[in-house]
Amino acid sequence: MATLLVKNGRVVTADFDAVCDVLIEGETIAAIGRNLPANGAEVIDATGKIVVPGGIDPHVHLDMPFMGTFSSDTHETGTRAALHGGTTTVIDFVLQKQGHSLREALTEWQGRATGTAVGDYSFHMAVTDFNPDTREEIKDMVAEGITSFKTFMAYKGALMIDDAQMVGLMQEVRKHGGLVTAHATNGDMIDTLIAQHRAQGKLTPRYHYLSQPEVTEAEASGRFTDIADYTGVNAYIVHLTCEGALNQVRDATRRNQRVFVETCIQYLLLDADLYGEEFEGAKWVMSPPLREKKDQETLWAGINQGLVQVVGTDHCPFRWEQKLMGKDDFSKIPNGHPAIEHRMELLFSEGVQKGRISLQKFVEVTSTNAAKIFGMFPRKGTISIGADADLVIIDPAAKHTISAATHHMNVDYSAYEGWELTGKIDTVLLRGQVAVDAGETKVPKGYGQFIRRGKTAF
Amino acid sequence: MATLLVKNGRVVTADFDAVCDVLIEGETIAAIGRNLPANGAEVIDATGKIVVPGGIDPHVHLDMPFMGTFSSDTHETGTRAALHGGTTTVIDFVLQKQGHSLREALTEWQGRATGTAVGDYSFHMAVTDFNPDTREEIKDMVAEGITSFKTFMAYKGALMIDDAQMVGLMQEVRKHGGLVTAHATNGDMIDTLIAQHRAQGKLTPRYHYLSQPEVTEAEASGRFTDIADYTGVNAYIVHLTCEGALNQVRDATRRNQRVFVETCIQYLLLDADLYGEEFEGAKWVMSPPLREKKDQETLWAGINQGLVQVVGTDHCPFRWEQKLMGKDDFSKIPNGHPAIEHRMELLFSEGVQKGRISLQKFVEVTSTNAAKIFGMFPRKGTISIGADADLVIIDPAAKHTISAATHHMNVDYSAYEGWELTGKIDTVLLRGQVAVDAGETKVPKGYGQFIRRGKTAF
Amino acid sequence: MATLLVKNGRVVTADFDAVCDVLIEGETIAAIGRNLPANGAEVIDATGKIVVPGGIDPHVHLDMPFMGTFSSDTHETGTRAALHGGTTTVIDFVLQKQGHSLREALTEWQGRATGTAVGDYSFHMAVTDFNPDTREEIKDMVAEGITSFKTFMAYKGALMIDDAQMVGLMQEVRKHGGLVTAHATNGDMIDTLIAQHRAQGKLTPRYHYLSQPEVTEAEASGRFTDIADYTGVNAYIVHLTCEGALNQVRDATRRNQRVFVETCIQYLLLDADLYGEEFEGAKWVMSPPLREKKDQETLWAGINQGLVQVVGTDHCPFRWEQKLMGKDDFSKIPNGHPAIEHRMELLFSEGVQKGRISLQKFVEVTSTNAAKIFGMFPRKGTISIGADADLVIIDPAAKHTISAATHHMNVDYSAYEGWELTGKIDTVLLRGQVAVDAGETKVPKGYGQFIRRGKTAF
Amino acid sequence: MATLLVKNGRVVTADFDAVCDVLIEGETIAAIGRNLPANGAEVIDATGKIVVPGGIDPHVHLDMPFMGTFSSDTHETGTRAALHGGTTTVIDFVLQKQGHSLREALTEWQGRATGTAVGDYSFHMAVTDFNPDTREEIKDMVAEGITSFKTFMAYKGALMIDDAQMVGLMQEVRKHGGLVTAHATNGDMIDTLIAQHRAQGKLTPRYHYLSQPEVTEAEASGRFTDIADYTGVNAYIVHLTCEGALNQVRDATRRNQRVFVETCIQYLLLDADLYGEEFEGAKWVMSPPLREKKDQETLWAGINQGLVQVVGTDHCPFRWEQKLMGKDDFSKIPNGHPAIEHRMELLFSEGVQKGRISLQKFVEVTSTNAAKIFGMFPRKGTISIGADADLVIIDPAAKHTISAATHHMNVDYSAYEGWELTGKIDTVLLRGQVAVDAGETKVPKGYGQFIRRGKTAF
Repeated sequence: MATLLVKNGRVVTADFDAVCDVLIEGETIAAIGRNLPANGAEVIDATGKIVVPGGIDPHVHLDMPFMGTFSSDTHETGTRAALHGGTTTVIDFVLQKQGHSLREALTEWQGRATGTAVGDYSFHMAVTDFNPDTREEIKDMVAEGITSFKTFMAYKGALMIDDAQMVGLMQEVRKHGGLVTAHATNGDMIDTLIAQHRAQGKLTPRYHYLSQPEVTEAEASGRFTDIADYTGVNAYIVHLTCEGALNQVRDATRRNQRVFVETCIQYLLLDADLYGEEFEGAKWVMSPPLREKKDQETLWAGINQGLVQVVGTDHCPFRWEQKLMGKDDFSKIPNGHPAIEHRMELLFSEGVQKGRISLQKFVEVTSTNAAKIFGMFPRKGTISIGADADLVIIDPAAKHTISAATHHMNVDYSAYEGWELTGKIDTVLLRGQVAVDAGETKVPKGYGQFIRRGKTAF
Repeated sequence: MATLLVKNGRVVTADFDAVCDVLIEGETIAAIGRNLPANGAEVIDATGKIVVPGGIDPHVHLDMPFMGTFSSDTHETGTRAALHGGTTTVIDFVLQKQGHSLREALTEWQGRATGTAVGDYSFHMAVTDFNPDTREEIKDMVAEGITSFKTFMAYKGALMIDDAQMVGLMQEVRKHGGLVTAHATNGDMIDTLIAQHRAQGKLTPRYHYLSQPEVTEAEASGRFTDIADYTGVNAYIVHLTCEGALNQVRDATRRNQRVFVETCIQYLLLDADLYGEEFEGAKWVMSPPLREKKDQETLWAGINQGLVQVVGTDHCPFRWEQKLMGKDDFSKIPNGHPAIEHRMELLFSEGVQKGRISLQKFVEVTSTNAAKIFGMFPRKGTISIGADADLVIIDPAAKHTISAATHHMNVDYSAYEGWELTGKIDTVLLRGQVAVDAGETKVPKGYGQFIRRGKTAF
Repeated sequence: MATLLVKNGRVVTADFDAVCDVLIEGETIAAIGRNLPANGAEVIDATGKIVVPGGIDPHVHLDMPFMGTFSSDTHETGTRAALHGGTTTVIDFVLQKQGHSLREALTEWQGRATGTAVGDYSFHMAVTDFNPDTREEIKDMVAEGITSFKTFMAYKGALMIDDAQMVGLMQEVRKHGGLVTAHATNGDMIDTLIAQHRAQGKLTPRYHYLSQPEVTEAEASGRFTDIADYTGVNAYIVHLTCEGALNQVRDATRRNQRVFVETCIQYLLLDADLYGEEFEGAKWVMSPPLREKKDQETLWAGINQGLVQVVGTDHCPFRWEQKLMGKDDFSKIPNGHPAIEHRMELLFSEGVQKGRISLQKFVEVTSTNAAKIFGMFPRKGTISIGADADLVIIDPAAKHTISAATHHMNVDYSAYEGWELTGKIDTVLLRGQVAVDAGETKVPKGYGQFIRRGKTAF
Repeated sequence: MATLLVKNGRVVTADFDAVCDVLIEGETIAAIGRNLPANGAEVIDATGKIVVPGGIDPHVHLDMPFMGTFSSDTHETGTRAALHGGTTTVIDFVLQKQGHSLREALTEWQGRATGTAVGDYSFHMAVTDFNPDTREEIKDMVAEGITSFKTFMAYKGALMIDDAQMVGLMQEVRKHGGLVTAHATNGDMIDTLIAQHRAQGKLTPRYHYLSQPEVTEAEASGRFTDIADYTGVNAYIVHLTCEGALNQVRDATRRNQRVFVETCIQYLLLDADLYGEEFEGAKWVMSPPLREKKDQETLWAGINQGLVQVVGTDHCPFRWEQKLMGKDDFSKIPNGHPAIEHRMELLFSEGVQKGRISLQKFVEVTSTNAAKIFGMFPRKGTISIGADADLVIIDPAAKHTISAATHHMNVDYSAYEGWELTGKIDTVLLRGQVAVDAGETKVPKGYGQFIRRGKTAF
């Protein structure tokens, strides 16, 4: 009944490292061993390759209505591009509309994702209006396998909740064993600085960056951490970018608190020099913005200190025509950049190959930790018997160059155009199927399944 | 050629969790899977049991000359007791004698351990006299697979090195990719307080504790961390016990430093109330001493924060007659307590079963992390193909009671007498052999091998 | 032309300490020396007494509309009581009404204070609605000698401004060289906890305390400090009560920031045990509430560390009938307690006499520092030639007992009923006049003048 | 009986600021006031000038045997130069010789200073060998008015004590109400780095600097602070230079500890760029060495935060021929630089005139705080009735240029050659005598008196 045998690869997980075979039966892993018999299963020769668990990107925005447009990758194009980059599971954000229920939003997102996604996906629920009705819905969401609740401390009037709602939400989520995550930046401060820059005619993309100084993130990270400590909820900061913010988490360890931290690949590799003086900087207009080189050092250190557990993308692509909406005013540039496809290859090349992190740590931060934190372990995030057969086969020595001309994301520029990487993903398996091989997608639209999630177990 | 098949257990590692089989060929693991065929191999039924990697205790003192006597467990009795408690590998400390070479000390320790140990073992080299000759020996030690170098910041005149030697040692060890560990307490302060207590006729075991206040450990931990940061060496603090010391490590994360931290099982579970006013407190006379309940909270939190990576024992047993050497003067009580046998069962019962840590974390801190930090991964510390078949089969629901009457350590008291635990180790495999089963030792004296170690890969 | 000669007292300021005479001409000090000739001036014999500068209480609420009533001391009764306690100058808070101008509020407060106050007074301007119109008024206020601007981070819908307003206000105040002060507690969190307690029927005064846990103050203190650092404004935290909040200020010193800190006498001397289970706890319902003994330790230490510069009162008295408005619901108890009269005697007795602070420090925190921070130095806050002759003559050995039966505040209970103090104020001079002597008020209603203030000079 | 009347100056102390007169009778101040009658006293017209208390430099080394030579200023030349710069009192260090008593050292220093000093002086006792005999002498020293005890954490074998001695000394000093001060750098680390640089042929003055990196000072400052906290003694760090060290003191505030901090004028104004590549850098070879610009920022901030209380000099001059002893080896360059004469003018010009500190703060850090900390207040450190009439009259607008050609120190170079300052000292009074006027010394050798000191009162 074995269906696939990955032979002779160097199989690596967060705590496993051996040249061996992986045998798949149907959608799951049946055996790991040396010289496993094929027994009729299709054989993939992974000699000289590295085999790691399918990547999990817990921070993507697909087909998302935002700033008067939609992020340009649908669940189809986005998860397909993710697969090409070794990310077999994504967690997308459902956004409650203020004045409406969580259920309405979920239904809307399910409508866009169901039957569309090529790769597996789950949802975070972004609570933008916490009130007595919403409170009642929390347990329902948990029951449906949506166990993480996103909050925005910015975007007042659209997505932001105040600290009163934060307390209430955290208390309720804690009761049901869930996790609260935060976009932790001080929206009030940022709105003020944006307005001031606009009033002064400072309208280029660089002023997007200057409207969100480090303190806006450090402050909100501290506040979120404080409230989480008070309520006792499991807490997670998304897309943390800077020393000031990580120091808040570090300081919180003194009171015996643990806060999970996600950074994104761009904050490790890119810095604010890219904003330059021209509109081209719009390619990297995202929130929080790119930071300084000292912040990159902090984040790499944070990973090795065990204080940064996850490297995601905050993938939220917009085509150039969309970015041009803000040609004359940075505040109208849709926020976000495309990265879903290259997270793993970038981190492998710049992190593992350059000696900044170990292979084990690579697997931890691209897959295992997200699976544990977001309640998908051990089904996802590792190579475990009975786990989904989500495997990524990397040719560690192969060199290739990133380009919009060849990428699979629905966006007409690349944030990493021309970057030459060492280490290329050859083949990707999702639930026992070859999903990508030699640059070809092998599974159809709709192959992706919704993943019900449980509680954090770390 | 399969020799052993562990069937149907819940196999758990730091990133694996599945009910499945583990197939062993000779000394190593050949396959992990469901319904693996026995093909003539002996079958161990692990239904309803938990199977974890063999424990690694990186902090034991066997047959060690100290304070005019020897720790009472030899490499034979100590590693045998370890096996009964699921610890298949220990790292013992070779102590350089001041004025003598590292080689001499190594030869002496090899003489005691070779052909004697029942379980696997390795050595740390304790450098007590760093000088130009010693410097030359560092690379030799690394070449022999002794890659970690212990320092004592206490016991002046016997084991202690000063900060000048510390700088030199760290620089040399860094050059060869090794690790420096420290007994981080301020020996000068402690010696002063001991002398003062003795001068005042304060001679009971409780004054051992009062001679080593938290500050003596916090200070030295900060100093060691500072010097390690300056030299850039990989650093590890052994037997960290208290909030003040962990806060030094936490603060050091702000400068992007990573320092590995080991605590010991006793500091998680016991506190200074045990010293009482009577001589019975001598059972827990060890250095550092037991601390306060707030320190226990810190250490549990530190494990979950990822800042404490290892739970060892500092096993250093002395029989009651030996403890009585200090009957009239606490400073003459041989320092140390017996724990090598119960580390894993204690942590399972008090940590996992009581919900303080996850099963994955249990494996990390009892085995995987030590293997990675001390250069034994993936041969040890996990259940990986080709890895040593070191497995521990735990009956998670079985209750049992700790007692000197039944333990295997060569010491006539137990530090945990009468503790009732939930979760009992049934069977232990070491390199493919059943080493312990149903309370019986199944491998002979001398079965244990010396494990050559490589560099830290975390 | 000398009018008054204070003979032979131990004259003490923050940096002066001598038995000598102080000669007054009219409203100001003309000379300090030994054996100064009276030349016809009235002589006050201060032999055996301590002579210190008139106290400054920079945090009082007189005749203030709040929670549906008015604080029970008018500018007349409040400043008279202050004089009896050696406080010759108070700074009262003008509260902008949201939707109205600063000017309107100032006019209203001037109407209540002018011709009424017995002691000298100044105003802080509480900005509760920062908008383009308010922005224009800041420079006018500074021009009128109102150089400090109070913000509330709590009392949403009534007094609270959001962080956007905070940024804008700080930028504007900085431009004009002023100071921004904050009631730094997280109003959103507090409102949530109040609502929860009420919903649960937890209605006694103790729940007032439990609705404002330490984190609500620590968080807001950190946020205020962060924004102040970003804007570069001079910042001052009023009525800081706890370790968590002071630690935010301590941590901010690492980025070279200086934030001024005021605590109040009650937080040094009283603790939350007073809330008990009965309604009597309403006597101490104030915001922030009383804290723990460990917080008292922090505050005393903060004074000696130079990090807490001022001890005020937040005097905001309500008569028992007013407190009874909240008999069935703690959230309706008017917040505040009476202390204006006893701040200096309490601090002298509990601080100086018990060896917690030096006499010099006593003068600093009751008078000099406030004068410097709030731009009244050297006219007020010291004994300097040409300075206002505001002097307090203390009999250091005299014992007396605090009681509502004898105090001068318009409130029918005392928060310190029955406290026996060592050190009693005999005589108080304000601008060269004997204002209080032997318990008698010697200056009429309206004697108090408005003090125009300049910039911080510390 | 009045002898001197300083008319019409702007008299400034830490809490006094008025244009007025100061009347002197004999050695002390008799009156401060406006229009004081001369009654035959000599009149000094201070119109347009600033009058401040005589400076106190608590850190000077006069005629000190060190590194095979003697610091080049005797008590005569050193205190005379000090007077020219407005410093009327210095505290010199008596150095116990290891193996000898404190008394012997004191006798030796008294022999050099008595009848020689032109300005007033006191002694710190440097305890370099704490043993049972030394312990007995502590109380004797306190009884003689030597209440501060210096420790060296560097210069092993000559001056350094270990932590055991530190504990013992602190306990004894605490018992007698004294103060322990420290040269807080890690001597062991520094000795190692010096040896390494020498072994590598790195022999220029720049390697003096590179042998004492920031961590060597931060570490020792933390250790000293820890031990002081444990023993409860009043503690003071001399010549603190850097962020890392001040952060140790800042962090210690969290445990409610207060540690006094002295920096020196050179660390505020000069930086390590001066070491250059040539031997000229020897001019600034001192310990600790000059630091970075970021450290200057930290120190200025520390002053305004109230965490740095004193600005001294560590005056320890050597003539160029003496510096040349280390021409071929930085480790033989006598450590120290000349500054006793220019501390106050430098700080006035660079601090007050450039708006970094207020005039009040200037007085605090040059005089008042040292007087309080070192038990000379109010006799010294302020302008108080009955206090010593030590006054400095500054012409705030006068410009002048520092040069070895014109200075009064016995050293043939200036560390500040060519610096143009704004603000010049016109006249200096010491105990009622004009000591310096218009550049002329007016008091003879031997005029200086030994000042007995009491306990810290801050």
